[in-house]
Amino acid sequence: MLDGLFNPKVVAVIGATPKEGKVGNILLKNLKNFRGKVYAVNPKYDEILGFECYPSVEEIPDNVDLAVVAVPANVVPEVLESCGRKGVKNVVVITAGFKEAGNYALERRVAEICRKYGINMVGPNCLGIINTHNDLNATFGGVLPPKGDIAFLSQSGAFILAVLDWAKANDVGFSKIVSLGNKAVLDEADFMRFLAEDEETRVIMLYLEGVSDGRKFMEVAREVSKVKPVIAMKSGKTEAGAKAASSHTGSLAGSFVAYRTAFRQCGIVEAESIENLFEFSLVLRRIRKVDGGIAVVTNSGGPGVMASDAIEEFGLKMAKFESETIERLREFLPPMANVYNPVDVLGDADAERFGKALKVVEKDGNVGAIIAILTPTAQIDFSKASEFVLSVDKPVITCFMGGESVRSAVDVLKRHGIVNFLDPVKAVKSLKAASDYGRMVERLGVHKEEIDVKADVRPLLSGKRVLTAESFEVLKAYGIPVPPYGIAKTAEEALEIADRIGYPVAMKIVSPEILHKTDVGCVKLNVRREEVISMFFELVKRAEDYLKADVEGVLVQKMMPKGREVIVGMKRDPQFGPLLMFGMGGIYVEVFKDVSFRIAPIGREDALEMVKEVKAYRILKGVRGEKPSDINAIVDVILRVAKLSVDCEEIVEMDLNPVFVYERGCCVVDAKMVLR
Amino acid sequence: MLDGLFNPKVVAVIGATPKEGKVGNILLKNLKNFRGKVYAVNPKYDEILGFECYPSVEEIPDNVDLAVVAVPANVVPEVLESCGRKGVKNVVVITAGFKEAGNYALERRVAEICRKYGINMVGPNCLGIINTHNDLNATFGGVLPPKGDIAFLSQSGAFILAVLDWAKANDVGFSKIVSLGNKAVLDEADFMRFLAEDEETRVIMLYLEGVSDGRKFMEVAREVSKVKPVIAMKSGKTEAGAKAASSHTGSLAGSFVAYRTAFRQCGIVEAESIENLFEFSLVLRRIRKVDGGIAVVTNSGGPGVMASDAIEEFGLKMAKFESETIERLREFLPPMANVYNPVDVLGDADAERFGKALKVVEKDGNVGAIIAILTPTAQIDFSKASEFVLSVDKPVITCFMGGESVRSAVDVLKRHGIVNFLDPVKAVKSLKAASDYGRMVERLGVHKEEIDVKADVRPLLSGKRVLTAESFEVLKAYGIPVPPYGIAKTAEEALEIADRIGYPVAMKIVSPEILHKTDVGCVKLNVRREEVISMFFELVKRAEDYLKADVEGVLVQKMMPKGREVIVGMKRDPQFGPLLMFGMGGIYVEVFKDVSFRIAPIGREDALEMVKEVKAYRILKGVRGEKPSDINAIVDVILRVAKLSVDCEEIVEMDLNPVFVYERGCCVVDAKMVLR
Repeated sequence: MLDGLFNPKVVAVIGATPKEGKVGNILLKNLKNFRGKVYAVNPKYDEILGFECYPSVEEIPDNVDLAVVAVPANVVPEVLESCGRKGVKNVVVITAGFKEAGNYALERRVAEICRKYGINMVGPNCLGIINTHNDLNATFGGVLPPKGDIAFLSQSGAFILAVLDWAKANDVGFSKIVSLGNKAVLDEADFMRFLAEDEETRVIMLYLEGVSDGRKFMEVAREVSKVKPVIAMKSGKTEAGAKAASSHTGSLAGSFVAYRTAFRQCGIVEAESIENLFEFSLVLRRIRKVDGGIAVVTNSGGPGVMASDAIEEFGLKMAKFESETIERLREFLPPMANVYNPVDVLGDADAERFGKALKVVEKDGNVGAIIAILTPTAQIDFSKASEFVLSVDKPVITCFMGGESVRSAVDVLKRHGIVNFLDPVKAVKSLKAASDYGRMVERLGVHKEEIDVKADVRPLLSGKRVLTAESFEVLKAYGIPVPPYGIAKTAEEALEIADRIGYPVAMKIVSPEILHKTDVGCVKLNVRREEVISMFFELVKRAEDYLKADVEGVLVQKMMPKGREVIVGMKRDPQFGPLLMFGMGGIYVEVFKDVSFRIAPIGREDALEMVKEVKAYRILKGVRGEKPSDINAIVDVILRVAKLSVDCEEIVEMDLNPVFVYERGCCVVDAKMVLR
Repeated sequence: MLDGLFNPKVVAVIGATPKEGKVGNILLKNLKNFRGKVYAVNPKYDEILGFECYPSVEEIPDNVDLAVVAVPANVVPEVLESCGRKGVKNVVVITAGFKEAGNYALERRVAEICRKYGINMVGPNCLGIINTHNDLNATFGGVLPPKGDIAFLSQSGAFILAVLDWAKANDVGFSKIVSLGNKAVLDEADFMRFLAEDEETRVIMLYLEGVSDGRKFMEVAREVSKVKPVIAMKSGKTEAGAKAASSHTGSLAGSFVAYRTAFRQCGIVEAESIENLFEFSLVLRRIRKVDGGIAVVTNSGGPGVMASDAIEEFGLKMAKFESETIERLREFLPPMANVYNPVDVLGDADAERFGKALKVVEKDGNVGAIIAILTPTAQIDFSKASEFVLSVDKPVITCFMGGESVRSAVDVLKRHGIVNFLDPVKAVKSLKAASDYGRMVERLGVHKEEIDVKADVRPLLSGKRVLTAESFEVLKAYGIPVPPYGIAKTAEEALEIADRIGYPVAMKIVSPEILHKTDVGCVKLNVRREEVISMFFELVKRAEDYLKADVEGVLVQKMMPKGREVIVGMKRDPQFGPLLMFGMGGIYVEVFKDVSFRIAPIGREDALEMVKEVKAYRILKGVRGEKPSDINAIVDVILRVAKLSVDCEEIVEMDLNPVFVYERGCCVVDAKMVLR
């Protein structure tokens, strides 16, 4: 669908001008080397910089595949109408002054025109697009970067300028570059979908400030990740205002958490810095999974140990060599050499000894990837060493440590797609990214098991802002275990309910205005029969007289035996939808923030992983001779909460806190829902 | 003391040879440019490479300040004797084949000779030393690096080779470089002490695999850090065997933890990768503390947000501008610009607008440091921008993002000591290191308050391997609160003790063979008077018959009211001495490893920081309306444990676990000590 955008035969620059320094002039200059026909559009000229010029795009005596627009913002709608009439299907609008400047109406109008004519529009307010493979530089940025197979989508035009400049100096090649701008029509997901099919692109690099449509993004990204890696950096992690949220889930499930969770669930590799963004992209061009442990081969002990340290630290594992490997290494390595992992071929090793060790290690069945480390000793011929590295078929990363003396060998490796690092720690970090990608992609295929609930809880939700005791009805309808309970309007009703469910009972005020009931003394636990009446009045008096709250009744609930406390929660993220949270209750959530997240819908595997991911999982499994908790029961609650969250968009926040978990089964003891 | 080593007038190369490629040949060549006199020593020649050659160092007709030795290992003692007789006070022994090859005796002999003659020896088994300021390249490595003010001490010679090579390519300058080798005589601490006084050195960069003498290292480092920054990278983090330790403290307090703790306590900045080692060193040449918040000034929103994110993430804080600053920025910045921190001067800004914003921000009293970020727009003249940056007096780091177009400006900044990063995240990380250094150095002056204990507990320790119940006597002697207790050999004694201290009591088996008493059913809690006799027999029977353990008696202890559980522990690190540990008990230590460390001796401030450092400190302070725990009582226990650890070297491991902490006071409920 976007082929015409990146591979046009004819391009028109609308707003072209001979005036030096103007965007409409730079655009034309940047298209000088384009392997296609370029027209200028400007009513004042017949020709600009040697390009034929016409008063309007409609008068160009040719089919125009792509128009690049650099006219004042208020003229853009008119220009787009003209493009539409001419049948131009692809437009890049460079012009700023739309949404980003508060002109929402103008941007909407532009989008409507594009929809009317079926125009693929990039921007507005963008730097433009680049396709290195046909020398299409439809930007007002500087030089075309080297040809390569990394595609780069960026929401910041300035960042593209920096990258273009840096890429040229460091000889990093790109396939296509897109400045996303305001994303009025085409967004990151549209480009990702296109790039997944693009034969010139092996890796997609993404710089995001936000996504346009979270669900679409996830859907597309999940498919794209199966085909090629997407490496993304998201800026804007700081969560202003998250602390004011009313539930635990609300306070922990900020928008950056939602992004991070979405990335993981779609197989997107997250980069936390610009350097990581590049390094991961370069490494993932070739290495996309790590099957087995990591072997380190080095001519220098220190850096070998650094690499081993980092491997442990980042959660990868050092390969344990087969005994055959160790014997073979022993055959030719000097007695002082370390034949175990990390293999140290010693400082007096020449390239042959190093290369032989590489080949032996590669054959080991436990080795999934190799980090080859060399310091510039007098004995090492780096160009020979690089030949040995190139003959390795398993994933390999090098640390040829040095400057001038390693340069040409490193260039050879680079041409063959092997990435060199000065720093072993960074080499390991990138290998970890590749390993993560491999594991994420495997799990993208996991079967999604649906919970079968046929309840309509909408009537329970309508007209309310907050559900406290009423939440139990909703949960029950979704098959989530809750204690026997009733809501009493009078003291007599309370006694009736308590008699029916059995003693002792818990009594809690029901009021949409009182959310943290325990903190304000609106909960009575272990109430005996003779106390029910007096407690009822005490609670109501406290709530009405002291707290001046509207009381809807008193929840009378069976006292459940104490179990391990967990929290299951949900916050509806404006972009990605229901962000589920799980954690051990109380201090674990509050102090250690030991929680896990997923975006619903999820399958049973995902729910189980949520439980296993928290550190406190060890406690649930039973430590120090204690009995294990019923993990399946928790998983079931999570799945039902997920289903409820997907079914009922009215629920924007939900806290089941605490859920008591027993050796068999579990029970939601308190719950709260915030409605739209 | 080491001046003659780095600033010799006359150097002799012993083992010099005309044979190409030999170490004794490379050494001579590398000394070609040395600004002093160089002699060769070799009985077979009169002259080598134009240098006068003598049969032995003693026959050189000149005072020799420094001898560089490259003769076979077995000849080294003889050569050193000869140096001693000649009065040579400084020797670098390049030769390998000593301790690292198992020849401990030879290495000891060499060290003794040096001691006898008062020779400062570097090595053996090293690459040599470098002083760029007099062109002294007494190594068999490659080229001399550029002159600069970073000193580099490295335990890995190979790593120096890599650094020399890299430094040249990246124009990073060094003052002195030392390959430490086996450290038979001079170690890292000796060089640090010398470099602290060295006017040509502003920053000391350290690569360590281990230290020779932990206490000396700490003592020296603490003094050096006050004068100039030391940045250290320690390899070998993986803790093999730590899991087999018998106490909680033992399993958590590995040797790398001891290093990290020692670094912090001495004001050493830890680098976790080679890149950090360099970047921190470069930034700390000029920036040594951050007084106030960080201001970010940028011409591009995205990278500005990245920097802000990282500032929050790394625990630095964004400066909150004074209202005057905001007004002044508003005066000249376009309406769309962000005048709050991060200041975005917008993509159309020229260097003047950017520079003006820098100057305004610098004047703000809340700003302690500035990160200046620029992307290569057409409007920005980087060379002008760099002039504005140079006029800033407050600490400043730049992110001029790009390649070719920023190069010359970045070079100018570099010449003035301002470090440029491509990646805002890395800029922030380095600023964090500078801020950490500043805070550590301030705290190096903290008064050490000593606990006054005049107890001699040696008799209690002698002849034992493990103390369980007997630990209480030791703790009591050090003024650490323990419950009333007694050790009963017979059931009658148990009853007597219990009657005396009051009911209910706890009864625990006393046996050096049973360390985890609770796990094997050798603890009875809440024992009433009528149960004491039967419990005594039950415990003894269980221990003797079932566990086949030697029983020394039964500890009868007053049942203490349940308090918050904390652990105070100590593990004697072979290098650094008593490594103290503090944490909340049970799950917090086991699952979350939420613990803090210090090396004794410590002062009250340190102990208080240990308590505040753990995340669970919030629990101790009292969460959700719970009463706070007696922090002072915990601090007092930590200080007394520190004192005990310093006084009694026999104790190698100690676990006070749990210590019950109350609103007022605390009490050690169980304790264990492992003796040497």
